[in-house]
Amino acid sequence: MSETPAKRTVTAETLQRDIDTPPFHKFLNIGVESVDAENGVVTLRLPFQAAFCRSPDVLQIHGGVTSAFVDITGDYALVAVLGYGVPTINLRLDFLRMAENTDLVAVAKVIKAGRTIGVVDITVTDDNDRLIAIGRGNYSTRAG
Amino acid sequence: MSETPAKRTVTAETLQRDIDTPPFHKFLNIGVESVDAENGVVTLRLPFQAAFCRSPDVLQIHGGVTSAFVDITGDYALVAVLGYGVPTINLRLDFLRMAENTDLVAVAKVIKAGRTIGVVDITVTDDNDRLIAIGRGNYSTRAG
Amino acid sequence: MSETPAKRTVTAETLQRDIDTPPFHKFLNIGVESVDAENGVVTLRLPFQAAFCRSPDVLQIHGGVTSAFVDITGDYALVAVLGYGVPTINLRLDFLRMAENTDLVAVAKVIKAGRTIGVVDITVTDDNDRLIAIGRGNYSTRAG
Amino acid sequence: MSETPAKRTVTAETLQRDIDTPPFHKFLNIGVESVDAENGVVTLRLPFQAAFCRSPDVLQIHGGVTSAFVDITGDYALVAVLGYGVPTINLRLDFLRMAENTDLVAVAKVIKAGRTIGVVDITVTDDNDRLIAIGRGNYSTRAG
Repeated sequence: MSETPAKRTVTAETLQRDIDTPPFHKFLNIGVESVDAENGVVTLRLPFQAAFCRSPDVLQIHGGVTSAFVDITGDYALVAVLGYGVPTINLRLDFLRMAENTDLVAVAKVIKAGRTIGVVDITVTDDNDRLIAIGRGNYSTRAG
Repeated sequence: MSETPAKRTVTAETLQRDIDTPPFHKFLNIGVESVDAENGVVTLRLPFQAAFCRSPDVLQIHGGVTSAFVDITGDYALVAVLGYGVPTINLRLDFLRMAENTDLVAVAKVIKAGRTIGVVDITVTDDNDRLIAIGRGNYSTRAG
Repeated sequence: MSETPAKRTVTAETLQRDIDTPPFHKFLNIGVESVDAENGVVTLRLPFQAAFCRSPDVLQIHGGVTSAFVDITGDYALVAVLGYGVPTINLRLDFLRMAENTDLVAVAKVIKAGRTIGVVDITVTDDNDRLIAIGRGNYSTRAG
Repeated sequence: MSETPAKRTVTAETLQRDIDTPPFHKFLNIGVESVDAENGVVTLRLPFQAAFCRSPDVLQIHGGVTSAFVDITGDYALVAVLGYGVPTINLRLDFLRMAENTDLVAVAKVIKAGRTIGVVDITVTDDNDRLIAIGRGNYSTRAG
């Protein structure tokens, strides 16, 4: 049985460093807007890129990009609370509106950080504060 | 009220052309393995890239890449049945095992292609036929 | 293609009457706490019954009872907005804590009431305001 | 940290006895059709009752009844594999067709029985073998 990993304090600076490390994140180029470790809330920004789009002609962001951004933001909300990385168990997404030629901002809030399961809610908005997508995920809080 | 778009016959060749068009898909570099339009089954392959990984040191594929691949495969299973593109309404993913240094193969099967909603099941396996993730999504079948 | 049904104004009184009609609801005995049709928020109460429990010895409420209560509350939040009944397309539930020997109160909030799809969030708490479960559902807003 | 509960062998007879115990199950009156503990597959039947319906006039089964039946069948598929009861972490349901004046038969299949999480797929059909609903759930396999 694995031990609980050592807890680190998470700030916007340490989180930005963590987020910049995975190769897939280099493609996304995510920026940390704010971290509230005490309340389990993290806000990230995904600056618009034409490479994210679902068509060469219309600058609508591909749902797969939004999904990845939701997953990542949810994950780091638990990282902010727990101080260590957690694998995603499951993720559920509702797509509410097309995002066109806009940055995305995701806010993730930890609903529960239990002994084995964490539950996180995520909302994604565009530059005009319109709701683009909502997500909810379970993450394994026992990960080594 | 929008008209139902014109139906096209979908083959592996037309599907590969469709999949190669979106800018985000160029990053993923998805290949069509097979299309069974009659039964609503599509099989796609995602060749491994280090750029998909969640760590610079360990070649585990990022969940966000798997999510996007699941969404896309589910979508094209309905395209194979309907002959036109459909937006994702929601997507639910269960991650069952880490995929390490492996291609991913996704099989999507249409469960229902209703008047307004399509329901699709997707399974993702690795090079050793181990189950990596399962997905289920609703897509809007009325899209123009 | 079916016409949109006639819209009725929904109040706590009309909602209580609607909720009392289905045979299955007689078993549940749900009470309307409040209706805010303008903001798409409905609050319902499920008074505790031993018949809801998962064990003859421990008064913990069965998850199936909670699920039904979540589905119903979500549905009536859209009824409050739309003025007509809507079938559930899908429902997703996270169970956060056992509810023991307690009424349940569910608050449902409409996130989106689109042309074909409604999205609703539901939270369930116990007599001590502890979070028991959260739900999210899609409902068909075109129902006749 | 709780110990893993003692494993019992599950047969149709022991499962029927387990299912008959919870007070809420008395309302549902579920019958065991078959148990395949080796492959993690359980089939249950829900005989039709007017008390399950969503209207006094039309004999359509309430979605809340179907949800409960899906949850229960998924749970007992893991019981068949593990030999002890497991709490539901989350449940996701897609409603595909109204069930009218019919028994329901649910087949649950364990997709994964991991150290902390079990994943189960459930399908519900009516007397004419038409697909009524599909479900997928995560259950906690560490429960005491």
